[in-house]
Amino acid sequence: MGEKERRARIVILGGGFAGIYTAMELERLMDGGEDFEVVLVNKENYFVFQPMLPEVISGTIGMLDVVSPIRRLLPRTDLRVREVESVDLERKLVVCSPGFRAQPHVIPYDHLVLGLGSVTDFRGLRGLPEHAFPFKNLGDALALRNHVIRALDEASIERDDERLRKQLLTFVVAGGGFSGVEVAAELNDFVRGVARNYPRIDAREIRIVLLHAGDRILPEVAESLAVFAQKILVKRGVEIRLNTMLDAASGDDAILKGGETIPTKTLVSTVPSFPHPLLEGLPLAKGRNGKLFSTKYLHVEGRTDVWALGDCAIVPMVDGNPSPPTAQHAIRQGATAAHNIVATVRNHSLRTFEFTGLGKMGSLGHRSAIAELPGGVKLSGILAWLMWRAIYLMKLPGMGRRLRVASAWFLDLFLAPELVQLKLGGSGGVSQEHFEPGQDVFRQGDLGDRVYIILSGAAEVWRTGEGTQPQLARLGPGDWFGEMALLNQTTRGATVRCVEAMDALTLPKRDFTVLAANLPDLRQSFERVMQARRRAVMTAMR
Amino acid sequence: MGEKERRARIVILGGGFAGIYTAMELERLMDGGEDFEVVLVNKENYFVFQPMLPEVISGTIGMLDVVSPIRRLLPRTDLRVREVESVDLERKLVVCSPGFRAQPHVIPYDHLVLGLGSVTDFRGLRGLPEHAFPFKNLGDALALRNHVIRALDEASIERDDERLRKQLLTFVVAGGGFSGVEVAAELNDFVRGVARNYPRIDAREIRIVLLHAGDRILPEVAESLAVFAQKILVKRGVEIRLNTMLDAASGDDAILKGGETIPTKTLVSTVPSFPHPLLEGLPLAKGRNGKLFSTKYLHVEGRTDVWALGDCAIVPMVDGNPSPPTAQHAIRQGATAAHNIVATVRNHSLRTFEFTGLGKMGSLGHRSAIAELPGGVKLSGILAWLMWRAIYLMKLPGMGRRLRVASAWFLDLFLAPELVQLKLGGSGGVSQEHFEPGQDVFRQGDLGDRVYIILSGAAEVWRTGEGTQPQLARLGPGDWFGEMALLNQTTRGATVRCVEAMDALTLPKRDFTVLAANLPDLRQSFERVMQARRRAVMTAMR
Repeated sequence: MGEKERRARIVILGGGFAGIYTAMELERLMDGGEDFEVVLVNKENYFVFQPMLPEVISGTIGMLDVVSPIRRLLPRTDLRVREVESVDLERKLVVCSPGFRAQPHVIPYDHLVLGLGSVTDFRGLRGLPEHAFPFKNLGDALALRNHVIRALDEASIERDDERLRKQLLTFVVAGGGFSGVEVAAELNDFVRGVARNYPRIDAREIRIVLLHAGDRILPEVAESLAVFAQKILVKRGVEIRLNTMLDAASGDDAILKGGETIPTKTLVSTVPSFPHPLLEGLPLAKGRNGKLFSTKYLHVEGRTDVWALGDCAIVPMVDGNPSPPTAQHAIRQGATAAHNIVATVRNHSLRTFEFTGLGKMGSLGHRSAIAELPGGVKLSGILAWLMWRAIYLMKLPGMGRRLRVASAWFLDLFLAPELVQLKLGGSGGVSQEHFEPGQDVFRQGDLGDRVYIILSGAAEVWRTGEGTQPQLARLGPGDWFGEMALLNQTTRGATVRCVEAMDALTLPKRDFTVLAANLPDLRQSFERVMQARRRAVMTAMR
Repeated sequence: MGEKERRARIVILGGGFAGIYTAMELERLMDGGEDFEVVLVNKENYFVFQPMLPEVISGTIGMLDVVSPIRRLLPRTDLRVREVESVDLERKLVVCSPGFRAQPHVIPYDHLVLGLGSVTDFRGLRGLPEHAFPFKNLGDALALRNHVIRALDEASIERDDERLRKQLLTFVVAGGGFSGVEVAAELNDFVRGVARNYPRIDAREIRIVLLHAGDRILPEVAESLAVFAQKILVKRGVEIRLNTMLDAASGDDAILKGGETIPTKTLVSTVPSFPHPLLEGLPLAKGRNGKLFSTKYLHVEGRTDVWALGDCAIVPMVDGNPSPPTAQHAIRQGATAAHNIVATVRNHSLRTFEFTGLGKMGSLGHRSAIAELPGGVKLSGILAWLMWRAIYLMKLPGMGRRLRVASAWFLDLFLAPELVQLKLGGSGGVSQEHFEPGQDVFRQGDLGDRVYIILSGAAEVWRTGEGTQPQLARLGPGDWFGEMALLNQTTRGATVRCVEAMDALTLPKRDFTVLAANLPDLRQSFERVMQARRRAVMTAMR
């Protein structure tokens, strides 16, 4: 390429509020000019309107009403639906995951905008990665909704097993900030609403428990609003446990600090949240929370070709404090960043980020909300709820989407909530489970549907005979069990009980039998162990 | 239990038109009587309104508008959301899959209603089980829709690879009966509609191909209607290939009888269809098509406690011919079966199935349809389309659902079609792929994302060096390959090309590395083979 003018390429990573509104402002600033082009990389082809995500649980709005196709919002932006795998700041390249072709997709840039947001990450929390539901994106909301309906369907079948019924009908939400409160409120409305369609579930059996570490929920707003919210939630049947922290989880219980357990099959946690993992590997200035330091111009500190905004960045406000991680701030940061990138391309002067915030709002479900406006004005109840809906409806990008949401809200006034459980494909493949001491992995006589490989911790194998209960074996890291029932197509021949907090890999029956049938080495080693175990059973039963 | 009156338990298997309408009529006949109870077993908690399923592809109606929660439709029926695993006709027991507890769920019955419907089964068809999309239930419709959007998103990224672009932008539907035609019509409307949002896709690149074995589509209706439908489809851009049969499929092509290939990543087949696999094991009288013989009273021949209807049964009409597999027939069969079951319980007399049919209708998408009414009346175009919508809207069970569908149809008149691609969970775990001779499994330099184990057929391994192209190995059944790139975290070191039609198991990278890390036997045997291969490479490159 010669000295001829080349279009500057602005590559935006992330399609949340920060990325989308940067691109929107860039499109506006194009005004026919041919001096730059915009590429947006996002792993989904849609933008999630995060503030309405909890409403997906209850089906108040349609599943797709909460998202907008990015191509419609940004007709002049080149959308690449891929995962970002790495960024090379020296060579100015973004490397994305492969598509149908097994080749990495490389995008060169002149300006890079990092709007990657945050992720919920349970790593390091005992049992949470395996057994807690995050609530961050549309997939999480759908998975939770389907799981809740499944729990109700199962509770209506399991009439005799009291402990299982309790687990199925108890729903625990950890974290009493805005998002935890909104999730608990919608979950409560939904479960209590649809339970009427289950003649075999008594409303009094249902528990929605909200755990919060502090001594009042909603630390983001004034105490009077938090107290209002607390009252509304309690009145509707949410149990609020203050000064209570979640310590761990198993497939059967939520385990609190101090050792108390709440039997449940549904544990949702909206915390803890971390900046996108891609940032870790980038040699850029970061705060202790892992977020990127941005200047008041939205540059990343020390660079003029990399910009960072939204939840993955520490963006200083006029008063020197960092911007809170809200949509309203991300939107204005996007506008400022877009202006400054174009100003850099066109050699104009930069402007600073000067937005100070318009207040805070949170929905409490069923016609109630709270709002804190600048100047200390506080609203609560139906007035705040109407304002919440009006403001978010206006903010929702795209006329079509607004119409759909408005019509869904209208229908919701007089239609019963949805209770369709969409099964979203098998959860096949290798997965991991966590067990607590005393918990049964399976019981003698159960149907065998998976094989287990112990990663850490320990378990004991017991067999109930005529009056006897000999312990057959103690298993530890590297041992595996559960294969007998699969290979012989029968039920479990013994009970396996966790005795030291245990993490195990599990492989579903289908995958195991296919692999065992086709990998002779694997089959042989399984058979060797099986024979040894049969002998142990014989000896023990003698 | 003493001689006290016991309620008869009627257990219905299947929640399609046959099962749902039997239960509906049974609820109506209860009239406060306490002499029987109704249990319905279905693997989903919703009823799919099959005639509208193709509209899910285009998003004309919301994803959930096409289904109704069974609990709402049948408030007095005891719904068990489980899979049926077996039926014991002697002991009168139905055994269902386990839920959260690993125990089978056993339901005793007095009367058993088999309304299990049919399934699409590609077994025995080369490459179809692995690479063709069925179109039978809601999950199929969503999977197809998401795949189509993904293909468009990818086509807009892959600008240079001509063959891949062709594959991504060609959509093949096999089977020119009602359901194939409806799917092709909706797919065509949808792809051409949303393609406008993809500036990098030219409408002329898009191909929708409908394959049909006969010399005209829609054998179900009069020739004039079929000709009308054919003209409409062609005008809108569907290529119709008559007297053409699909022979096989690979991940890259649809392969026609005679050897011609159509490069495509999207092959939909609505055929062949078989009765539910559970019937195979039941000792009941069956026709050559595997369906159960029913009497004109809807009994299964030779039994008074087992009833069969809908698509899994051969139900004689008044003229002696079997009922066609349509919703209108299943609905009336349900009413007759319900009447006769209650008559049996109450010792009243049975009545015979006397419905003869109301005609046939099929949608052609975008404001066109065809209809054939009794007495030889034929309708086509917008009039038939309005009738189609009016009739199905009335048939749709539940007022709420009707309202939702009507409002979705109304919005659809002036809103652009949805193009959100919902990723429905990983397709993790062991899966199977089919390759045709000449097809590359992967190429040297590709990113490695899975391991392959050959089940049948053969492949050759090639390596491109400086000017040389030595063949490294020939692989056959039981051999596996692709592990090198995974263990060393690099790209593929060689090209693997299928030389004899080949079926292979594949294991994704994540599952493979976890298993290899935790199963020493597996890891050892993989390492042994790796070393041997490294030596082979060295020798070949010498």
